[in-house]
Amino acid sequence: MYLREKTVVVIDVLRASTTVTAALYNGAKEIIPVATVESAMKIVGNLYGDVRLLGGERNGKMIEGFNLGNSPLEYTEERVFGKAIVYSTTNGSLAMVKARYAKVMVVASFVNLSAVAAFVEDVTGSRNEEESDIIILCAGRNGFYSLEDSVCAGMLIEKLSARKPALTSECGDAGIVSLTMFKRHSRSLLKMLKNSEHGKYLSAIGYGDDLKFCAAVDSLPVVPQLLGNVVKLKKDGDSSKGSFS
Amino acid sequence: MYLREKTVVVIDVLRASTTVTAALYNGAKEIIPVATVESAMKIVGNLYGDVRLLGGERNGKMIEGFNLGNSPLEYTEERVFGKAIVYSTTNGSLAMVKARYAKVMVVASFVNLSAVAAFVEDVTGSRNEEESDIIILCAGRNGFYSLEDSVCAGMLIEKLSARKPALTSECGDAGIVSLTMFKRHSRSLLKMLKNSEHGKYLSAIGYGDDLKFCAAVDSLPVVPQLLGNVVKLKKDGDSSKGSFS
Repeated sequence: MYLREKTVVVIDVLRASTTVTAALYNGAKEIIPVATVESAMKIVGNLYGDVRLLGGERNGKMIEGFNLGNSPLEYTEERVFGKAIVYSTTNGSLAMVKARYAKVMVVASFVNLSAVAAFVEDVTGSRNEEESDIIILCAGRNGFYSLEDSVCAGMLIEKLSARKPALTSECGDAGIVSLTMFKRHSRSLLKMLKNSEHGKYLSAIGYGDDLKFCAAVDSLPVVPQLLGNVVKLKKDGDSSKGSFS
Repeated sequence: MYLREKTVVVIDVLRASTTVTAALYNGAKEIIPVATVESAMKIVGNLYGDVRLLGGERNGKMIEGFNLGNSPLEYTEERVFGKAIVYSTTNGSLAMVKARYAKVMVVASFVNLSAVAAFVEDVTGSRNEEESDIIILCAGRNGFYSLEDSVCAGMLIEKLSARKPALTSECGDAGIVSLTMFKRHSRSLLKMLKNSEHGKYLSAIGYGDDLKFCAAVDSLPVVPQLLGNVVKLKKDGDSSKGSFS
Protein backbone atom coordinates (compact mmCIF):
# COMPACT_ATOMS: atom_id res chain seq x y z
CA MET A 1 0.00 0.00 0.00
CA TYR A 2 1.23 3.45 -0.87
CA LEU A 3 1.36 5.50 2.34
CA ARG A 4 3.53 8.46 1.42
CA GLU A 5 1.54 11.71 1.31
CA LYS A 6 -1.26 10.04 3.28
CA THR A 7 -2.70 10.56 6.71
CA VAL A 8 -2.39 7.10 8.22
CA VAL A 9 -4.26 5.93 11.31
CA VAL A 10 -2.77 2.73 12.75
CA ILE A 11 -5.25 0.59 14.70
CA ASP A 12 -4.31 -2.36 16.86
CA VAL A 13 -6.97 -2.41 19.58
CA LEU A 14 -5.61 -5.58 21.23
CA ARG A 15 -3.28 -4.20 22.35
CA ALA A 16 -0.50 -2.11 20.80
CA SER A 17 -2.58 0.99 20.00
CA THR A 18 -4.19 0.97 23.43
CA THR A 19 -0.88 0.33 25.21
CA VAL A 20 1.01 3.08 23.37
CA THR A 21 -1.80 5.51 24.16
CA ALA A 22 -1.83 4.49 27.83
CA ALA A 23 1.95 4.86 28.08
CA LEU A 24 1.98 8.36 26.64
CA TYR A 25 -1.10 9.40 28.63
CA ASN A 26 0.80 8.31 31.76
CA GLY A 27 3.76 10.48 30.92
CA ALA A 28 6.11 8.30 28.88
CA LYS A 29 8.42 10.63 26.94
CA GLU A 30 8.21 8.67 23.70
CA ILE A 31 7.64 5.26 22.17
CA ILE A 32 10.15 3.94 19.65
CA PRO A 33 8.30 1.30 17.60
CA VAL A 34 10.57 -1.34 16.09
CA ALA A 35 9.82 -4.43 14.02
CA THR A 36 12.10 -7.00 15.61
CA VAL A 37 13.39 -7.95 19.02
CA GLU A 38 16.92 -7.66 17.64
CA SER A 39 16.33 -4.03 16.59
CA ALA A 40 14.85 -3.32 20.00
CA MET A 41 17.96 -4.66 21.76
CA LYS A 42 20.26 -2.69 19.48
CA ILE A 43 18.40 0.60 19.88
CA VAL A 44 18.00 0.34 23.62
CA GLY A 45 21.75 -0.18 23.92
CA ASN A 46 22.26 3.32 22.51
CA LEU A 47 19.98 4.99 25.05
CA TYR A 48 20.97 6.19 28.49
CA GLY A 49 20.02 3.48 30.99
CA ASP A 50 17.90 5.48 33.40
CA VAL A 51 15.48 6.82 30.85
CA ARG A 52 14.69 3.80 28.74
CA LEU A 53 12.55 0.71 28.95
CA LEU A 54 11.98 -2.25 26.66
CA GLY A 55 8.34 -3.17 26.09
CA GLY A 56 6.37 -5.50 23.89
CA GLU A 57 5.34 -9.08 23.27
CA ARG A 58 5.51 -12.13 21.10
CA ASN A 59 2.38 -14.30 21.03
CA GLY A 60 0.91 -11.95 23.63
CA LYS A 61 3.58 -12.76 26.20
CA MET A 62 6.48 -10.75 27.63
CA ILE A 63 9.83 -11.07 25.84
CA GLU A 64 12.82 -12.33 27.82
CA GLY A 65 15.01 -9.45 28.94
CA PHE A 66 12.26 -6.86 28.40
CA ASN A 67 11.03 -4.57 31.20
CA LEU A 68 7.39 -4.51 30.21
CA GLY A 69 5.00 -6.80 28.39
CA ASN A 70 2.16 -5.51 26.25
CA SER A 71 -0.65 -5.09 28.78
CA PRO A 72 -1.75 -1.44 28.97
CA LEU A 73 -2.26 -2.03 32.69
CA GLU A 74 1.52 -2.34 33.11
CA TYR A 75 2.22 1.07 31.64
CA THR A 76 1.37 3.04 34.79
CA GLU A 77 2.64 6.53 35.56
CA GLU A 78 4.98 5.00 38.16
CA ARG A 79 6.61 2.74 35.60
CA VAL A 80 6.73 4.92 32.51
CA PHE A 81 6.79 8.62 33.44
CA GLY A 82 9.62 10.40 31.63
CA LYS A 83 10.85 7.20 29.96
CA ALA A 84 11.62 6.39 26.33
CA ILE A 85 10.13 3.00 25.56
CA VAL A 86 11.57 0.85 22.80
CA TYR A 87 8.56 -1.15 21.76
CA SER A 88 8.16 -4.29 19.68
CA THR A 89 5.00 -6.34 19.17
CA THR A 90 3.90 -8.98 16.67
CA ASN A 91 1.47 -6.84 14.69
CA GLY A 92 1.02 -3.33 16.09
CA SER A 93 4.56 -1.99 16.22
CA LEU A 94 5.14 -3.56 12.83
CA ALA A 95 2.22 -1.57 11.38
CA MET A 96 3.66 1.59 12.95
CA VAL A 97 7.05 0.90 11.38
CA LYS A 98 5.40 0.25 8.01
CA ALA A 99 3.60 3.58 8.24
CA ARG A 100 6.71 5.61 9.04
CA TYR A 101 6.80 7.25 5.61
CA ALA A 102 3.29 8.56 5.88
CA LYS A 103 2.83 12.31 5.86
CA VAL A 104 1.02 12.08 9.17
CA MET A 105 0.76 8.91 11.27
CA VAL A 106 -1.31 8.61 14.41
CA VAL A 107 -2.26 5.70 16.63
CA ALA A 108 -5.90 4.96 17.39
CA SER A 109 -7.97 2.58 19.46
CA PHE A 110 -11.24 2.82 21.34
CA VAL A 111 -9.60 4.66 24.26
CA ASN A 112 -8.74 7.71 22.15
CA LEU A 113 -11.14 7.43 19.23
CA SER A 114 -12.78 10.86 19.41
CA ALA A 115 -9.45 12.62 19.93
CA VAL A 116 -8.00 10.94 16.85
CA ALA A 117 -11.11 11.73 14.80
CA ALA A 118 -10.88 15.41 15.74
CA PHE A 119 -7.17 15.45 14.94
CA VAL A 120 -7.67 13.79 11.54
CA GLU A 121 -10.48 16.20 10.66
CA ASP A 122 -8.23 19.07 11.62
CA VAL A 123 -5.20 17.87 9.65
CA THR A 124 -7.03 16.79 6.50
CA GLY A 125 -9.36 19.78 6.53
CA SER A 126 -6.39 22.13 6.44
CA ARG A 127 -4.93 20.55 3.31
CA ASN A 128 -6.16 20.44 -0.25
CA GLU A 129 -8.31 17.51 -1.33
CA GLU A 130 -5.66 15.54 -3.15
CA GLU A 131 -3.47 15.46 -0.10
CA SER A 132 -6.23 14.60 2.28
CA ASP A 133 -6.53 10.87 1.67
CA ILE A 134 -6.93 8.98 4.89
CA ILE A 135 -5.66 5.43 5.24
CA ILE A 136 -6.84 3.38 8.18
CA LEU A 137 -4.25 0.67 8.68
CA CYS A 138 -5.64 -2.20 10.73
CA ALA A 139 -2.77 -4.20 12.21
CA GLY A 140 -4.79 -7.40 12.20
CA ARG A 141 -3.29 -10.65 13.38
CA ASN A 142 -0.39 -12.17 11.47
CA GLY A 143 -1.71 -10.74 8.23
CA PHE A 144 -5.29 -11.83 8.81
CA TYR A 145 -8.48 -9.91 9.44
CA SER A 146 -9.22 -9.06 13.05
CA LEU A 147 -12.70 -8.18 14.19
CA GLU A 148 -11.77 -5.64 16.86
CA ASP A 149 -9.59 -3.53 14.55
CA SER A 150 -12.31 -3.54 11.90
CA VAL A 151 -14.97 -2.45 14.41
CA CYS A 152 -12.70 0.36 15.64
CA ALA A 153 -12.02 1.45 12.04
CA GLY A 154 -15.79 1.49 11.48
CA MET A 155 -16.25 3.71 14.51
CA LEU A 156 -13.65 6.13 13.15
CA ILE A 157 -15.25 6.18 9.69
CA GLU A 158 -18.64 6.88 11.24
CA LYS A 159 -17.23 9.76 13.29
CA LEU A 160 -15.40 11.25 10.31
CA SER A 161 -18.39 10.85 8.01
CA ALA A 162 -20.56 12.89 10.36
CA ARG A 163 -18.82 15.93 8.88
CA LYS A 164 -18.11 14.43 5.46
CA PRO A 165 -21.04 12.14 4.54
CA ALA A 166 -19.48 11.37 1.13
CA LEU A 167 -16.77 9.45 2.93
CA THR A 168 -18.89 6.35 3.47
CA SER A 169 -19.48 5.88 -0.26
CA GLU A 170 -15.77 6.27 -1.00
CA CYS A 171 -14.33 3.99 1.60
CA GLY A 172 -14.24 0.73 -0.37
CA ASP A 173 -15.04 -2.86 0.60
CA ALA A 174 -12.97 -2.86 3.79
CA GLY A 175 -14.65 0.36 4.86
CA ILE A 176 -18.11 -1.03 4.15
CA VAL A 177 -17.46 -4.11 6.26
CA SER A 178 -15.90 -2.05 9.06
CA LEU A 179 -18.92 0.26 9.24
CA THR A 180 -21.28 -2.71 9.20
CA MET A 181 -19.38 -4.51 11.96
CA PHE A 182 -19.18 -1.34 14.07
CA LYS A 183 -22.92 -0.73 13.81
CA ARG A 184 -23.54 -4.31 14.81
CA HIS A 185 -21.28 -4.18 17.87
CA SER A 186 -21.38 -0.50 18.90
CA ARG A 187 -23.45 -1.15 22.01
CA SER A 188 -21.39 -4.08 23.21
CA LEU A 189 -17.74 -3.41 22.48
CA LEU A 190 -16.51 -5.39 25.47
CA LYS A 191 -18.61 -8.38 24.48
CA MET A 192 -17.25 -8.09 20.93
CA LEU A 193 -13.67 -8.08 22.28
CA LYS A 194 -14.41 -11.12 24.43
CA ASN A 195 -15.80 -12.98 21.42
CA SER A 196 -12.98 -12.02 19.06
CA GLU A 197 -10.24 -14.53 18.26
CA HIS A 198 -7.49 -12.47 19.83
CA GLY A 199 -9.67 -11.52 22.81
CA LYS A 200 -10.32 -15.18 23.50
CA TYR A 201 -6.61 -15.89 23.25
CA LEU A 202 -5.68 -13.06 25.63
CA SER A 203 -8.28 -14.23 28.15
CA ALA A 204 -6.88 -17.75 27.91
CA ILE A 205 -3.32 -16.63 28.70
CA GLY A 206 -4.41 -14.49 31.66
CA TYR A 207 -4.99 -11.04 30.17
CA GLY A 208 -8.77 -10.94 30.40
CA ASP A 209 -8.64 -7.70 32.42
CA ASP A 210 -6.98 -5.94 29.49
CA LEU A 211 -10.14 -6.31 27.42
CA LYS A 212 -12.16 -4.04 29.70
CA PHE A 213 -9.40 -1.43 29.59
CA CYS A 214 -9.25 -1.65 25.78
CA ALA A 215 -13.04 -1.30 25.42
CA ALA A 216 -13.28 1.99 27.37
CA VAL A 217 -14.16 4.50 24.65
CA ASP A 218 -12.42 7.89 24.99
CA SER A 219 -10.95 7.10 28.40
CA LEU A 220 -7.50 8.40 27.32
CA PRO A 221 -8.21 11.41 25.07
CA VAL A 222 -4.74 11.93 23.61
CA VAL A 223 -3.25 11.47 20.13
CA PRO A 224 0.01 9.52 19.79
CA GLN A 225 1.70 10.75 16.65
CA LEU A 226 4.83 9.68 14.81
CA LEU A 227 7.36 12.52 14.82
CA GLY A 228 10.62 11.49 13.24
CA ASN A 229 11.13 7.91 14.35
CA VAL A 230 9.31 8.16 17.65
CA VAL A 231 5.67 8.23 18.68
CA LYS A 232 4.81 10.99 21.15
CA LEU A 233 2.03 13.32 22.13
CA LYS A 234 1.83 16.59 20.30
CA LYS A 235 2.25 19.38 22.85
CA ASP A 236 0.35 22.66 22.58
CA GLY A 237 2.49 25.13 20.73
CA ASP A 238 4.48 22.30 19.19
CA SER A 239 5.55 23.36 15.73
CA SER A 240 5.41 19.83 14.33
CA LYS A 241 2.06 20.26 12.67
CA GLY A 242 3.50 22.97 10.47
CA SER A 243 5.75 20.39 8.85
CA PHE A 244 2.73 18.61 7.34
CA SER A 245 1.30 21.61 5.53
CA MET B 1 -1.47 -20.47 6.08
CA TYR B 2 -1.03 -24.18 6.55
CA LEU B 3 -3.17 -25.89 3.91
CA ARG B 4 -1.79 -29.41 3.80
CA GLU B 5 -4.27 -31.96 5.22
CA LYS B 6 -7.07 -29.41 4.84
CA THR B 7 -10.15 -29.20 2.69
CA VAL B 8 -9.68 -25.87 0.95
CA VAL B 9 -12.44 -23.96 -0.83
CA VAL B 10 -11.09 -21.23 -3.09
CA ILE B 11 -13.46 -18.33 -3.66
CA ASP B 12 -12.99 -15.60 -6.24
CA VAL B 13 -16.51 -14.57 -7.18
CA LEU B 14 -15.36 -11.80 -9.57
CA ARG B 15 -14.45 -13.72 -11.61
CA ALA B 16 -12.00 -16.63 -11.53
CA SER B 17 -14.17 -19.05 -9.53
CA THR B 18 -17.22 -18.29 -11.63
CA THR B 19 -15.30 -18.50 -14.89
CA VAL B 20 -13.60 -21.80 -14.06
CA THR B 21 -16.97 -23.27 -13.09
CA ALA B 22 -18.59 -21.99 -16.30
CA ALA B 23 -15.77 -23.41 -18.43
CA LEU B 24 -16.00 -26.88 -16.90
CA TYR B 25 -19.82 -26.83 -16.95
CA ASN B 26 -19.59 -26.08 -20.65
CA GLY B 27 -17.38 -29.08 -21.28
CA ALA B 28 -13.82 -27.84 -20.95
CA LYS B 29 -11.62 -30.86 -20.27
CA GLU B 30 -9.56 -29.20 -17.58
CA ILE B 31 -8.25 -25.90 -16.26
CA ILE B 32 -4.54 -25.54 -15.52
CA PRO B 33 -4.21 -22.66 -13.05
CA VAL B 34 -0.86 -20.89 -13.16
CA ALA B 35 0.48 -17.90 -11.26
CA THR B 36 2.25 -15.97 -14.00
CA VAL B 37 1.79 -15.17 -17.68
CA GLU B 38 5.29 -16.57 -18.28
CA SER B 39 4.31 -19.94 -16.77
CA ALA B 40 1.15 -19.94 -18.87
CA MET B 41 3.13 -19.41 -22.06
CA LYS B 42 5.60 -22.14 -21.14
CA ILE B 43 2.96 -24.70 -20.23
CA VAL B 44 0.78 -24.05 -23.25
CA GLY B 45 3.80 -24.64 -25.48
CA ASN B 46 3.92 -28.22 -24.24
CA LEU B 47 0.29 -28.95 -25.09
CA TYR B 48 -1.04 -30.10 -28.44
CA GLY B 49 -2.31 -27.05 -30.30
CA ASP B 50 -5.85 -28.16 -31.10
CA VAL B 51 -6.85 -28.95 -27.55
CA ARG B 52 -5.54 -26.02 -25.61
CA LEU B 53 -6.49 -22.43 -24.95
CA LEU B 54 -4.92 -19.62 -22.96
CA GLY B 55 -7.30 -17.74 -20.69
CA GLY B 56 -7.10 -15.10 -18.01
CA GLU B 57 -6.59 -11.43 -17.25
CA ARG B 58 -4.45 -8.74 -15.74
CA ASN B 59 -6.33 -5.78 -14.26
CA GLY B 60 -9.53 -7.40 -15.49
CA LYS B 61 -8.46 -7.19 -19.15
CA MET B 62 -7.43 -9.83 -21.67
CA ILE B 63 -3.72 -10.64 -21.91
CA GLU B 64 -1.96 -10.15 -25.24
CA GLY B 65 -1.59 -13.45 -27.08
CA PHE B 66 -4.27 -15.16 -24.99
CA ASN B 67 -7.37 -16.79 -26.55
CA LEU B 68 -9.82 -15.86 -23.82
CA GLY B 69 -10.15 -13.13 -21.23
CA ASN B 70 -11.71 -13.69 -17.84
CA SER B 71 -15.40 -13.10 -18.51
CA PRO B 72 -17.44 -16.25 -17.79
CA LEU B 73 -19.60 -15.25 -20.78
CA GLU B 74 -16.67 -16.01 -23.10
CA TYR B 75 -16.31 -19.60 -21.91
CA THR B 76 -19.17 -20.98 -23.99
CA GLU B 77 -19.57 -24.62 -25.01
CA GLU B 78 -18.58 -23.62 -28.54
CA ARG B 79 -15.30 -22.15 -27.42
CA VAL B 80 -14.23 -24.49 -24.65
CA PHE B 81 -15.72 -27.98 -25.15
CA GLY B 82 -12.99 -30.62 -24.90
CA LYS B 83 -10.23 -28.06 -24.39
CA ALA B 84 -7.51 -27.80 -21.76
CA ILE B 85 -7.35 -24.18 -20.62
CA VAL B 86 -4.13 -22.76 -19.21
CA TYR B 87 -5.46 -20.06 -16.93
CA SER B 88 -3.82 -17.11 -15.22
CA THR B 89 -5.52 -14.28 -13.34
CA THR B 90 -4.38 -11.66 -10.85
CA ASN B 91 -5.92 -13.15 -7.73
CA GLY B 92 -8.00 -16.26 -8.40
CA SER B 93 -5.60 -18.55 -10.23
CA LEU B 94 -2.92 -17.48 -7.76
CA ALA B 95 -5.11 -18.65 -4.86
CA MET B 96 -5.66 -21.97 -6.67
CA VAL B 97 -1.92 -22.40 -7.14
CA LYS B 98 -1.32 -21.59 -3.45
CA ALA B 99 -3.85 -24.23 -2.45
CA ARG B 100 -2.33 -27.00 -4.55
CA TYR B 101 -0.95 -28.89 -1.56
CA ALA B 102 -4.31 -29.09 0.16
CA LYS B 103 -5.74 -32.54 0.72
CA VAL B 104 -8.85 -31.52 -1.20
CA MET B 105 -9.23 -28.27 -3.12
CA VAL B 106 -12.44 -27.13 -4.76
CA VAL B 107 -13.51 -23.90 -6.42
CA ALA B 108 -16.63 -22.08 -5.25
CA SER B 109 -18.69 -19.06 -6.16
CA PHE B 110 -22.36 -18.20 -6.06
CA VAL B 111 -23.07 -20.19 -9.25
CA ASN B 112 -22.16 -23.52 -7.62
CA LEU B 113 -22.51 -22.79 -3.92
CA SER B 114 -24.91 -25.59 -2.94
CA ALA B 115 -23.00 -28.18 -4.97
CA VAL B 116 -19.75 -27.24 -3.22
CA ALA B 117 -21.43 -27.26 0.21
CA ALA B 118 -22.79 -30.77 -0.41
CA PHE B 119 -19.38 -31.93 -1.64
CA VAL B 120 -17.56 -30.48 1.39
CA GLU B 121 -20.06 -32.06 3.79
CA ASP B 122 -19.56 -35.36 2.04
CA VAL B 123 -15.75 -35.23 2.07
CA THR B 124 -15.30 -33.94 5.61
CA GLY B 125 -18.06 -36.12 7.03
CA SER B 126 -16.32 -39.24 5.75
CA ARG B 127 -13.07 -38.41 7.55
CA ASN B 128 -12.21 -38.21 11.20
CA GLU B 129 -12.53 -34.90 12.97
CA GLU B 130 -8.88 -33.92 13.02
CA GLU B 131 -8.69 -34.22 9.27
CA SER B 132 -11.89 -32.39 8.62
CA ASP B 133 -10.73 -28.80 8.99
CA ILE B 134 -12.17 -26.63 6.29
CA ILE B 135 -10.31 -23.57 5.04
CA ILE B 136 -12.19 -21.04 2.95
CA LEU B 137 -9.58 -19.16 0.96
CA CYS B 138 -10.94 -15.85 -0.31
CA ALA B 139 -8.83 -14.66 -3.22
CA GLY B 140 -9.54 -11.02 -2.43
CA ARG B 141 -8.00 -8.28 -4.47
CA ASN B 142 -4.24 -7.80 -4.47
CA GLY B 143 -4.05 -9.05 -0.91
CA PHE B 144 -6.92 -6.93 0.34
CA TYR B 145 -10.38 -7.79 1.61
CA SER B 146 -13.07 -8.11 -1.02
CA LEU B 147 -16.72 -7.85 -0.12
CA GLU B 148 -18.07 -10.32 -2.66
CA ASP B 149 -15.72 -13.15 -1.64
CA SER B 150 -16.54 -12.57 2.00
CA VAL B 151 -20.31 -12.65 1.33
CA CYS B 152 -19.90 -15.88 -0.66
CA ALA B 153 -17.81 -17.41 2.16
CA GLY B 154 -20.57 -16.43 4.59
CA MET B 155 -23.16 -18.17 2.41
CA LEU B 156 -21.04 -21.32 2.43
CA ILE B 157 -20.55 -21.19 6.22
CA GLU B 158 -24.30 -20.76 6.71
CA LYS B 159 -25.03 -23.75 4.47
CA LEU B 160 -22.44 -25.95 6.19
CA SER B 161 -23.57 -24.89 9.66
CA ALA B 162 -27.12 -26.03 8.95
CA ARG B 163 -25.80 -29.54 9.55
CA LYS B 164 -23.05 -28.59 11.99
CA PRO B 165 -24.29 -25.66 14.10
CA ALA B 166 -21.06 -25.65 16.15
CA LEU B 167 -19.25 -24.44 13.04
CA THR B 168 -20.36 -20.82 13.43
CA SER B 169 -18.76 -20.52 16.87
CA GLU B 170 -15.49 -22.01 15.62
CA CYS B 171 -15.04 -20.03 12.47
CA GLY B 172 -13.01 -17.10 13.83
CA ASP B 173 -13.13 -13.37 13.11
CA ALA B 174 -13.11 -13.69 9.33
CA GLY B 175 -15.95 -16.21 9.55
CA ILE B 176 -17.98 -13.94 11.83
CA VAL B 177 -17.64 -11.02 9.44
CA SER B 178 -18.43 -13.21 6.41
CA LEU B 179 -21.61 -14.52 7.99
CA THR B 180 -22.66 -11.01 8.99
CA MET B 181 -22.03 -9.62 5.52
CA PHE B 182 -23.85 -12.54 3.88
CA LYS B 183 -26.93 -12.07 6.09
CA ARG B 184 -26.92 -8.40 5.25
CA HIS B 185 -26.69 -8.93 1.49
CA SER B 186 -28.36 -12.33 0.97
CA ARG B 187 -31.45 -10.86 -0.68
CA SER B 188 -29.58 -8.56 -3.00
CA LEU B 189 -26.43 -10.30 -4.21
CA LEU B 190 -26.43 -8.53 -7.56
CA LYS B 191 -26.76 -5.14 -5.88
CA MET B 192 -23.91 -6.10 -3.53
CA LEU B 193 -21.72 -7.03 -6.52
CA LYS B 194 -22.57 -3.74 -8.24
CA ASN B 195 -21.58 -1.81 -5.09
CA SER B 196 -18.36 -3.73 -4.45
CA GLU B 197 -15.02 -2.18 -5.38
CA HIS B 198 -14.21 -4.80 -7.98
CA GLY B 199 -17.76 -4.85 -9.32
CA LYS B 200 -17.60 -1.10 -9.88
CA TYR B 201 -14.27 -1.51 -11.64
CA LEU B 202 -15.56 -4.30 -13.91
CA SER B 203 -18.63 -2.24 -14.82
CA ALA B 204 -16.37 0.70 -15.62
CA ILE B 205 -14.22 -1.33 -18.05
CA GLY B 206 -17.24 -2.82 -19.83
CA TYR B 207 -17.92 -6.08 -17.97
CA GLY B 208 -21.13 -5.05 -16.21
CA ASP B 209 -22.99 -8.04 -17.73
CA ASP B 210 -20.64 -10.41 -15.94
CA LEU B 211 -22.01 -9.33 -12.58
CA LYS B 212 -25.47 -10.72 -13.30
CA PHE B 213 -23.93 -14.02 -14.39
CA CYS B 214 -21.77 -14.15 -11.25
CA ALA B 215 -24.75 -13.44 -8.95
CA ALA B 216 -26.89 -16.35 -10.23
CA VAL B 217 -26.91 -18.72 -7.24
CA ASP B 218 -26.66 -22.43 -8.13
CA SER B 219 -27.00 -21.81 -11.87
CA LEU B 220 -24.02 -24.13 -12.61
CA PRO B 221 -24.31 -26.98 -10.07
CA VAL B 222 -20.89 -28.59 -10.57
CA VAL B 223 -17.77 -28.85 -8.40
CA PRO B 224 -14.40 -27.94 -9.95
CA GLN B 225 -11.76 -29.85 -8.05
CA LEU B 226 -7.98 -29.87 -8.17
CA LEU B 227 -6.77 -33.30 -9.25
CA GLY B 228 -3.01 -33.41 -9.67
CA ASN B 229 -2.15 -30.05 -11.18
CA VAL B 230 -5.40 -29.49 -13.03
CA VAL B 231 -8.89 -28.43 -12.04
CA LYS B 232 -11.64 -30.62 -13.45
CA LEU B 233 -15.08 -31.97 -12.66
CA LYS B 234 -15.24 -35.18 -10.71
CA LYS B 235 -17.00 -37.76 -12.86
CA ASP B 236 -19.37 -40.35 -11.41
CA GLY B 237 -17.43 -43.48 -10.67
CA ASP B 238 -14.22 -41.46 -10.59
CA SER B 239 -11.88 -43.07 -8.09
CA SER B 240 -10.29 -39.77 -7.16
CA LYS B 241 -12.25 -39.33 -3.96
CA GLY B 242 -10.70 -42.53 -2.63
CA SER B 243 -7.35 -40.81 -2.60
CA PHE B 244 -8.52 -38.41 0.08
CA SER B 245 -9.54 -41.06 2.57
